Amino acid sequence: MQFIDFDKTAAYKKLAGLVQAAEGFDFTALLTAGRIKNSLVPMAGGLTYSWAAKRVDQAVLDALSALAEEQELIAKYQALLDGEIINTGEKRRVLHHLLRGQLGKQVIHEGRDLGAFYQEELARFSAFAEAVRSGKIRPSEGKTFSTVVQIGIGGSDLGPRALCLALENWAAKEGKRRLRAAFISNVDPDDASQVTASVPLDETLFVLVSKSGVTQETLANELFVKDKLKKAGLDPGRHMAAVTSETSPLAHNPAYLDSFYIDDFIGGRYSSTSAVGGVVLSLAFGPEVFKEVLAGAHEADALALKPDLSANAALLDALIGVWERNFLGYPYTAILPYSQALSRFPAHLQQLDMESNGKRVNRNGSPLPYSTGPVVFGEPGTNGQHSFYQLLHQGTDPVPLQFVGFAESQRGDDVEVDGSTSQTKLKANLAAQIVAFAKGHTPGHIPGQASGGGDKTKEFPGGRPSSLIYGRRLTPAALGALLAHFENKVMFQGFVWNLNSFDQEGVQLGKVLTKKVLAAKSGGGSGDPALDAYSAILGV
Amino acid sequence: MQFIDFDKTAAYKKLAGLVQAAEGFDFTALLTAGRIKNSLVPMAGGLTYSWAAKRVDQAVLDALSALAEEQELIAKYQALLDGEIINTGEKRRVLHHLLRGQLGKQVIHEGRDLGAFYQEELARFSAFAEAVRSGKIRPSEGKTFSTVVQIGIGGSDLGPRALCLALENWAAKEGKRRLRAAFISNVDPDDASQVTASVPLDETLFVLVSKSGVTQETLANELFVKDKLKKAGLDPGRHMAAVTSETSPLAHNPAYLDSFYIDDFIGGRYSSTSAVGGVVLSLAFGPEVFKEVLAGAHEADALALKPDLSANAALLDALIGVWERNFLGYPYTAILPYSQALSRFPAHLQQLDMESNGKRVNRNGSPLPYSTGPVVFGEPGTNGQHSFYQLLHQGTDPVPLQFVGFAESQRGDDVEVDGSTSQTKLKANLAAQIVAFAKGHTPGHIPGQASGGGDKTKEFPGGRPSSLIYGRRLTPAALGALLAHFENKVMFQGFVWNLNSFDQEGVQLGKVLTKKVLAAKSGGGSGDPALDAYSAILGV
Repeated sequence: MQFIDFDKTAAYKKLAGLVQAAEGFDFTALLTAGRIKNSLVPMAGGLTYSWAAKRVDQAVLDALSALAEEQELIAKYQALLDGEIINTGEKRRVLHHLLRGQLGKQVIHEGRDLGAFYQEELARFSAFAEAVRSGKIRPSEGKTFSTVVQIGIGGSDLGPRALCLALENWAAKEGKRRLRAAFISNVDPDDASQVTASVPLDETLFVLVSKSGVTQETLANELFVKDKLKKAGLDPGRHMAAVTSETSPLAHNPAYLDSFYIDDFIGGRYSSTSAVGGVVLSLAFGPEVFKEVLAGAHEADALALKPDLSANAALLDALIGVWERNFLGYPYTAILPYSQALSRFPAHLQQLDMESNGKRVNRNGSPLPYSTGPVVFGEPGTNGQHSFYQLLHQGTDPVPLQFVGFAESQRGDDVEVDGSTSQTKLKANLAAQIVAFAKGHTPGHIPGQASGGGDKTKEFPGGRPSSLIYGRRLTPAALGALLAHFENKVMFQGFVWNLNSFDQEGVQLGKVLTKKVLAAKSGGGSGDPALDAYSAILGV
Repeated sequence: MQFIDFDKTAAYKKLAGLVQAAEGFDFTALLTAGRIKNSLVPMAGGLTYSWAAKRVDQAVLDALSALAEEQELIAKYQALLDGEIINTGEKRRVLHHLLRGQLGKQVIHEGRDLGAFYQEELARFSAFAEAVRSGKIRPSEGKTFSTVVQIGIGGSDLGPRALCLALENWAAKEGKRRLRAAFISNVDPDDASQVTASVPLDETLFVLVSKSGVTQETLANELFVKDKLKKAGLDPGRHMAAVTSETSPLAHNPAYLDSFYIDDFIGGRYSSTSAVGGVVLSLAFGPEVFKEVLAGAHEADALALKPDLSANAALLDALIGVWERNFLGYPYTAILPYSQALSRFPAHLQQLDMESNGKRVNRNGSPLPYSTGPVVFGEPGTNGQHSFYQLLHQGTDPVPLQFVGFAESQRGDDVEVDGSTSQTKLKANLAAQIVAFAKGHTPGHIPGQASGGGDKTKEFPGGRPSSLIYGRRLTPAALGALLAHFENKVMFQGFVWNLNSFDQEGVQLGKVLTKKVLAAKSGGGSGDPALDAYSAILGV
């Protein structure tokens, strides 16, 4: 297996030679029913991926396929699954796939079978969640836990929060929801103050999540919460559980109801399918629901091993993203789920993608001469249509789009207005947007609109590329598949760019300088006049 | 007054000539306490703006000042205030400033004094809100309204929602909150279904907001809500009020408790300080709180008339944004409020900016040869630090940053851990990030970290520009000032780029195609095979 920079590959040169033709690509002529049908790639969880409205043709797809082979993307993924040290900088294995099932060799680390370890923890927190949900574990006599509040930040917040939101309506409909879930993340004290004021403290279970056990925000919020519990006459020990690593200062602390463990091989932003996401999801919706999420993710992980692009949506999506980033020159990509349940999914993907591939050096630390991870942003449709879509349609620079949609709503509660349900309108809007972005319109061609003949303000240039992931309904399995799709996509892109998608050195400097600022409060200054000046004007 | 394209100005050439020097700019040497102090520009609402960590020097500032003069930015703003037809495409005045106070000529339209009209509506909805809050207006005997749910989308949702969230903790602390506020926006039926299931319907006042009165999503959600009310045995007429224009199909409908009016001169994304935001804010927190928001915005509007850059933060911020977009070549900008209360403020600014200036033709419809509005995204700090900041620090391409922070929290409820409160930690993080982004670090220079000598993965290039807006506390006046600052910034940028910031033709095509899709359901197809194919796979 060879790790080489992207610009040193033969595929790079080949792709560069295809740009001119692709820029002349006419979506109006080419976005046929046949092309759309040919573009469909089956995914896990009953989902399907379509690239029909992307700026690619067979020549580009062939070159991307050659790139996958040349950069040995599947082999590198298999090595990761087999437990090799893929996170080179931190010298760590990368094992979040193993949380969902075994696709590689047995991974033995310091004498321990890690797959078995993850399964044991899953079994332990499943049993814990059942005991809380059934009232076997209680905050006090006569009370049951009605609410779970996760205290965590970054990967211990965004993914679990997005998944909880994504399943709330599904669970309400299926009668699965038992505990209400809330989250405290920010060190801004208004966050913890508001959440603790809005929950019934005597019925609330707090789940403290920090892999390292030293996260500044999370420890401050833990003490904030403990203080509130004590002031309410409650015993914090009966209201708190922890998710951490076994080597952390939080581990094996009898002050918690129970503690569940992950290890250094589960990166924060990849930890939604570990105890980090599993405890809160199992408490809120039941462990069997969380296991459906795992099953959907595992199915996606297995499909991601297929070498054929037409059977591997994660790989294809990754490669098209590289094509757009490095050859078409798009510096951003938008995630646009037509599903209110996925309202915070873009925020999770923003972390997943930007923290993984926002790197300017390769895995060995050599500066890269090409662009890597794009800026990722997004909001649900149709909301976004009444907001930033103006720029997407008529701004000076195209933004590649990633649509997600479902045939059915989660709650099945709908109303018919003007001959269609709201769910049908939602889907009609999605279909319309894909075509509007791809084909555009020239003035005067919009029926039913005051003549715009020659009025360029009413012109839509079109040629704005999008992909679509769709399914029947956003179930736990579909959600797990969607999550793993993007995790695997980001991983493949990191392999193409030859960088380490699994460290995050870019968060360190801020931590160090923050400590300097706080230390300077005891007098003497930080040693950096700019730090001192900003501290002074902010009233630190 | 002349309207000319940006690239035709003398300032454009001048600025282009300054790029090379600016790219060599060394923040480590230049970010002195003196520069930081010199950079402070007083804003309204007790806020201050600092450009110290931006990639500008005196030569750039002088050229930007000359640009402001050459493009007659203040004169154009004054013309807008005086009621001229600044929204050329739709042939409309642009009067959201007049909602906050009079800074230009009296605006008479078809015999009516519009300033007086806006004041009358403000007085009417203030009285209505008081009556609801005091229990004079009730849903039924023995009940009072405990909850207000706004039904609207885009500008009728994002701004009002962001402002409500921003004031919730302040109002809780000040004892101002009376009604809980919730929002229904998406046509996804799960949105309305979930919100209606989570509120006490018999105590809920629904505020229907649609300027045109024909917004598909809002009308569908109105009927959704009415259906729920009827099924609960309630009279919708006692649970609904409307905000619309007088010419809309919703106007003067006795089926609502009351109706409040705006007009075509208040654009959706600029309508937060009209009845669109005012009704819900006045209901939730009291009309006197909403009037403080207006006062803060008005003060900002007045400051925005000052020709001197060192006294006009909105103008300066706008010009630096143009410098970054057109000369430094940054295609995006991030909004990073160190305030959980502002968690949805970036989503509002995303609409404000991208819908206003995401345009590829000038105000006369001629294609523009330069870039216009950037992609805008953001999340609150410190949350973002544990997420996408990795790319901001170490990605291949710099992203200009706009920080916002406050000395005090809103709730004043805090805990001291390791010698500092959470609020102090929040501010220390903010100061640290500004300096980290500006100055960067070379490996081995991070104290307390395992030797990174020569390890480029631990290198921070620095030179990543940011601005800072800070104040004592996020009060209603500060919030109004912040809102107006960004509105005025976007307006000035639109004037520089010579485009119409006040229309949104880019939303039309999707609407037309959606209607086609829905009409095709009755058989015969839409006439567009791509539309039909996407409709089929989505199950429309």
